Amino acid sequence: MTVLAPGLAPADDQELTGLLAASAAAEVPDGGAALLGWLADHDRHAAMTVHRADLAALEGWTDDPVGGRIHHRSGRFFAVEGLDVQVPGAPVEHWQQPIIRQPEVGVLGILATRIGGVLHLLMQAKVEPGNPVGHQLSPTVQATRSNYQRAHGGRAVPYLEYFLGTVPGARTVVDVRQSEQGSWFLRKRNRNVVVEVPGGPEAVPARPGFRWCTLAEVHRALAVTDVVNMDTRTVLSCLPLAGGALRPAGAGRPDDFRAALLRSMLGESGGVHRTADLLSDLTVARTETDVDVGRVPLHTLQGWSRRDGAIVHDDGAYFSVVGVDVVARGREVARWSQPMFAAHGTGLVAFVVRRIGGVLHVLAALRTEPGFVDAVELAPTVQCTPENYAHRPASQRPAYLDRVLAADPDRLRFDTVMSEEGGRFHHTRTRYVVVEETGDDPDLVTGPGHRWVTLAQLSELVRHSHYLNVQARSLLTCLHSLALCA
Amino acid sequence: MTVLAPGLAPADDQELTGLLAASAAAEVPDGGAALLGWLADHDRHAAMTVHRADLAALEGWTDDPVGGRIHHRSGRFFAVEGLDVQVPGAPVEHWQQPIIRQPEVGVLGILATRIGGVLHLLMQAKVEPGNPVGHQLSPTVQATRSNYQRAHGGRAVPYLEYFLGTVPGARTVVDVRQSEQGSWFLRKRNRNVVVEVPGGPEAVPARPGFRWCTLAEVHRALAVTDVVNMDTRTVLSCLPLAGGALRPAGAGRPDDFRAALLRSMLGESGGVHRTADLLSDLTVARTETDVDVGRVPLHTLQGWSRRDGAIVHDDGAYFSVVGVDVVARGREVARWSQPMFAAHGTGLVAFVVRRIGGVLHVLAALRTEPGFVDAVELAPTVQCTPENYAHRPASQRPAYLDRVLAADPDRLRFDTVMSEEGGRFHHTRTRYVVVEETGDDPDLVTGPGHRWVTLAQLSELVRHSHYLNVQARSLLTCLHSLALCA
Repeated sequence: MTVLAPGLAPADDQELTGLLAASAAAEVPDGGAALLGWLADHDRHAAMTVHRADLAALEGWTDDPVGGRIHHRSGRFFAVEGLDVQVPGAPVEHWQQPIIRQPEVGVLGILATRIGGVLHLLMQAKVEPGNPVGHQLSPTVQATRSNYQRAHGGRAVPYLEYFLGTVPGARTVVDVRQSEQGSWFLRKRNRNVVVEVPGGPEAVPARPGFRWCTLAEVHRALAVTDVVNMDTRTVLSCLPLAGGALRPAGAGRPDDFRAALLRSMLGESGGVHRTADLLSDLTVARTETDVDVGRVPLHTLQGWSRRDGAIVHDDGAYFSVVGVDVVARGREVARWSQPMFAAHGTGLVAFVVRRIGGVLHVLAALRTEPGFVDAVELAPTVQCTPENYAHRPASQRPAYLDRVLAADPDRLRFDTVMSEEGGRFHHTRTRYVVVEETGDDPDLVTGPGHRWVTLAQLSELVRHSHYLNVQARSLLTCLHSLALCA
Repeated sequence: MTVLAPGLAPADDQELTGLLAASAAAEVPDGGAALLGWLADHDRHAAMTVHRADLAALEGWTDDPVGGRIHHRSGRFFAVEGLDVQVPGAPVEHWQQPIIRQPEVGVLGILATRIGGVLHLLMQAKVEPGNPVGHQLSPTVQATRSNYQRAHGGRAVPYLEYFLGTVPGARTVVDVRQSEQGSWFLRKRNRNVVVEVPGGPEAVPARPGFRWCTLAEVHRALAVTDVVNMDTRTVLSCLPLAGGALRPAGAGRPDDFRAALLRSMLGESGGVHRTADLLSDLTVARTETDVDVGRVPLHTLQGWSRRDGAIVHDDGAYFSVVGVDVVARGREVARWSQPMFAAHGTGLVAFVVRRIGGVLHVLAALRTEPGFVDAVELAPTVQCTPENYAHRPASQRPAYLDRVLAADPDRLRFDTVMSEEGGRFHHTRTRYVVVEETGDDPDLVTGPGHRWVTLAQLSELVRHSHYLNVQARSLLTCLHSLALCA
């Protein structure tokens, strides 16, 4: 209940939540075909050619044998460095690996406006060198600081001004720094920001390559392989989609799963754990987990070698660091080279979910990754590359992995392969899965490293930095799409 | 409204909030004299003698001329190091200073239980070497990790087990890591934790030196100089004291100021800024503020010298690093030596507050301190040592300082001198002030570095790490005491 005093802003954002829920429940007339067609048009008219190149000979980059790192000659963008990691008490206590250091906080921003009373998001058709196929649905702005300060001498970033606070009348929907892959980035953070502007598309026209979409259209596209890019998924996960304003959208739903999901987002029914206990669990885990990371020269990394112009793991596992030469039409600059990380095998990221007391809960893991700013974040139930564990005994396989792989198809509530950020990761894809458990299997009792949490709790946490890792945020967006579609 | 499903915990902690509010509104029969008498008794029976000693000759400590730092020979506890600070764009862009490095996360814990239905807190009478006079009201447990892992070979820390998660049936009220003085500590954090145990004092008896107190008794003691210690103030600030459960406590209050304060804690009436905008302001400030800190040897610090066995600033300003020899009765060990920071002059920490739309707002500053984990936290309106600015022109004096110093006494809602943590700071005292502004003075329009926030917003933020600095948290506890007393 909001009892607003004159001149004061409301204590909560339920009006925004209602607007967002209505946009997510909007009809998608052609089942989303128009949006996919629009992306495909861009593939025809703005091609990008990517060729592998020797890491030691990338135009503009120094493969420094003394410092033992690969960095851009301008000192900007990012660097590939060697990392020594020690996590006393972890299953693997010590290892070394390459990692991307990108200390700048970039902007991942989506503009919103009302069209005919329905909130629309300004999405961009963007192709990145790492994309497995063509253009993907990207935020309005996706820019590192080097990028938008034009370190490469390219064109200005369109719409950037809305996210740098220079446009009056705009309303911030959300604005929070979030981590990215902590196994591949050292303490990287980006601002995840959504800004609503008044005046509709007349005030802010969509330039070529941009399109105003309802949240329903973007949510629908999540079901298609390689269409919604990682940056869109993480920004949308931060939308305020919890609380009572969701009620009308879910009225009279016949589907038990969706009703339980919506009840989980409403948040009124509580959950297995008090939020105070979840916060305490994170406090204790972060207090007790010592993650010691230190730089080592790339050429001395234990377990890694140079082969065919790339840095590869001696077991052929995990990922490689590769170089690429890129030629693009329709971007800020037409030609560049850069290092990229290329994962081996398709990743698996899954939330095991179940209804408890009629409320859908997801099983979140307390996970440590070397690049996290704060040691531990909430992560999906399972997050790994199954290939890396193919020949390991059951005791060495990640918890719940076999349960997810063996799940009956009729319990898969979401199952799409999507790619990770195409600006840094080369053909690096992940299968995103939501699998519902039923019955009272004792294996599903929470172990020390997992907690059953509601979607309302995840939405409360994701307003703040560093509680949910990027994979958990992607899945949160997928869950929202299941709950709110018409 | 809580619609609880069977087996689920409630979505909010309003039952706890109600319990805490009732404890804060409990009658204090003798006006608090018994509690003060109890503390004074301890002064008579457990004395501590503190003598100044040369930093270079402290028993157990190495004043390392090569590494340029002062550290304990065990490698534990803490170290005094030299810090080079660069904050491009700040009023002072570059300086050097000594700083305390204490990377361990300690425990500041208060036990709670119900006595006759009223929540009581287990407080400790504790004397610390830096205390200006005698014993202060301290949390149940106040322990560094070295401390409770018995690095000094002392006695076990009483009641510690309740905060390490080893006692079943306990309920976590709050558990969050918070920063401490970012000008004196490098990235120090302590767990602020309150745990409710069942069974009353029969189940958990108060040992000698401990006493079960209502929240009202502790709040009342805030009005007395040097009684409630810093650790108690910060832990209490994190209590969930917002929301509808406060309503009964405030029913029918005749006092306009208190009614506005309570409305601010209730949170239903909203505030000048949406919480989403406050979070965005912090995101932007943290993104744009580059705080570059690096270690330098103590003996090369620009602007600082050794004099009379201490490290002092060449202007005689700010603070000194001094050594002390301590002899104590009634503590874990009877005799030790240590370095301490000694501030010059009494600090001033003030919230300017005003009623806006009938809701009390406090003017919080977006403040950068070199030791913060995350560059910027919300701080009091004014936080400085006025002596350091005595002879500076108005343009160089902190914003709002003169307004607070000149405030009419009848607008001072809170005004007590209290001391900073006596384990690290020697006779370092701060005047804590809440001053109410009335009228529509244009000088009170928010500048770029300040925001008007409600107490409900502060309570929402303080559940999470690193939003409110330790001085703001102390003042939040003082404001709670004004709102909730009988």
